[in-house]
Amino acid sequence: MDRGPLPPRSVILTQVEEWNAGARKRVEDSLAAEEPLEIRVGRYSLGITMRTPGQDGELAAGLLLTQGVVTRREQIAAIREPAAGKESSRRNRIVVTLARGTRVDPRRLARRTYASSACGVCGRSFLDVARTQNRKPLDSATKFAPEIVRAMPEALRAAQDVFARTGGLHAAGLFDARGALLALREDIGRHNAVDKVIGWALLEGRVPLAGAALLVSGRGGFEIIQKALVAGIPLVASVSAPSSLAVQLARQSNMTLIGFLRGERFVVYSGEERIAPASARS
Amino acid sequence: MDRGPLPPRSVILTQVEEWNAGARKRVEDSLAAEEPLEIRVGRYSLGITMRTPGQDGELAAGLLLTQGVVTRREQIAAIREPAAGKESSRRNRIVVTLARGTRVDPRRLARRTYASSACGVCGRSFLDVARTQNRKPLDSATKFAPEIVRAMPEALRAAQDVFARTGGLHAAGLFDARGALLALREDIGRHNAVDKVIGWALLEGRVPLAGAALLVSGRGGFEIIQKALVAGIPLVASVSAPSSLAVQLARQSNMTLIGFLRGERFVVYSGEERIAPASARS
Repeated sequence: MDRGPLPPRSVILTQVEEWNAGARKRVEDSLAAEEPLEIRVGRYSLGITMRTPGQDGELAAGLLLTQGVVTRREQIAAIREPAAGKESSRRNRIVVTLARGTRVDPRRLARRTYASSACGVCGRSFLDVARTQNRKPLDSATKFAPEIVRAMPEALRAAQDVFARTGGLHAAGLFDARGALLALREDIGRHNAVDKVIGWALLEGRVPLAGAALLVSGRGGFEIIQKALVAGIPLVASVSAPSSLAVQLARQSNMTLIGFLRGERFVVYSGEERIAPASARS
Repeated sequence: MDRGPLPPRSVILTQVEEWNAGARKRVEDSLAAEEPLEIRVGRYSLGITMRTPGQDGELAAGLLLTQGVVTRREQIAAIREPAAGKESSRRNRIVVTLARGTRVDPRRLARRTYASSACGVCGRSFLDVARTQNRKPLDSATKFAPEIVRAMPEALRAAQDVFARTGGLHAAGLFDARGALLALREDIGRHNAVDKVIGWALLEGRVPLAGAALLVSGRGGFEIIQKALVAGIPLVASVSAPSSLAVQLARQSNMTLIGFLRGERFVVYSGEERIAPASARS
């Protein structure tokens, strides 16, 4: 399982006051680090993202893919990571150089989120934009056994324990159909954790992620589904609830969307045909 | 307690497949609605936000305040709410008209989030920007008893139960120092829920919110603290962990920041002097 190098600045220690049953005491506590990161493509700025430092190259690569700036690994020629220990402006800026000949829609560079990179709320709807951006159908050959799905949250938590002490990090994990955790990334932002793990896959040459499942620690909103769709992930699961628009996009894309994945129970919102007990298959 | 009119489109029913202990069945489930909203100030677009429909006027007002576009209630002359039942472009667009003579920095209109409205990661830091935007010190006279703080999450949950069935909504609640819930707003986005409740207060003429506490259901990140600071809220609490930058901003602003507010226990990251048992006060 790939979890990347241990980020040097992801946890910060501080003194706090703990109240318990009406009594107070001073204790030391760990905080999840949050710092701004400016992502540049050449001379153009994609804006500033609040993120947990570490794996910034993967975050940038994932964001460029999920935002539609690039579609293939080969379009990224180089990534200049933030310079550790430098002044804040250098430490929190990452510069991506695209391969010669890569054509980019400047509107995609000017706007950071999928929401604002869509063509507005007028005319073509969000769902239409997502559909036209993702013409390749998702892998439908891979099936996932329900017992494999149920075991994913515990596998994610077990792998998370190094950083989980702060309680403040979201996690995104990629699994294969046998339930093996391929990669785990954590961040104060849910969307960042997903972009990081997709960025890892892109840089490893594993996109499209046919046969993979994405588990997110938070809710499954529209933007999470949109990111997974661009990366070609056929199954997305979360321990909490999806939104209405997330369900609509998953259904229209034939993606398997699972929510409330807790203990023995989970809810399948779309793509039920990918969930099949191992015993029921030929 | 103000919870606003029941939003007509905040919950959507759908058929899903529930797996439990290896067996599947069809059931009906509620989804939290998510739709794009374009916020305009006159002819200028602030971009598109994914949000749960309902209380859009409060969301727009709160965002304009926390983003620094307006600083007072009087600067908002009119808010034209989305037209219910119309085509998508009209239904998901809200237009704010500023009062004659209100001067606006166009950079604040062009960029939607606080992160991207700061002057970049170079030169002046995020914390410096937040400091210069908020020159008025927070109310330091009001004290909060620890038993009042501990009771807030249950009060929020009790008031939340109408929508909580979807499991997919974040909540933000404003409390007074005696623990009474003043207003509750819910949204698929944490930041939206906070902007809505602050927008409610702005439109009610209650900003700055001296003597109030803000409880959020998610984590306390930098942007939540920044929004509370602009609204003059002296105490912010969350059931989960704050980030490092949130703690830094709270400490520099003399805001009381509480995390891990669960059961008998909570952690005070800054502004400990506002937490005082009622018996210890004169």
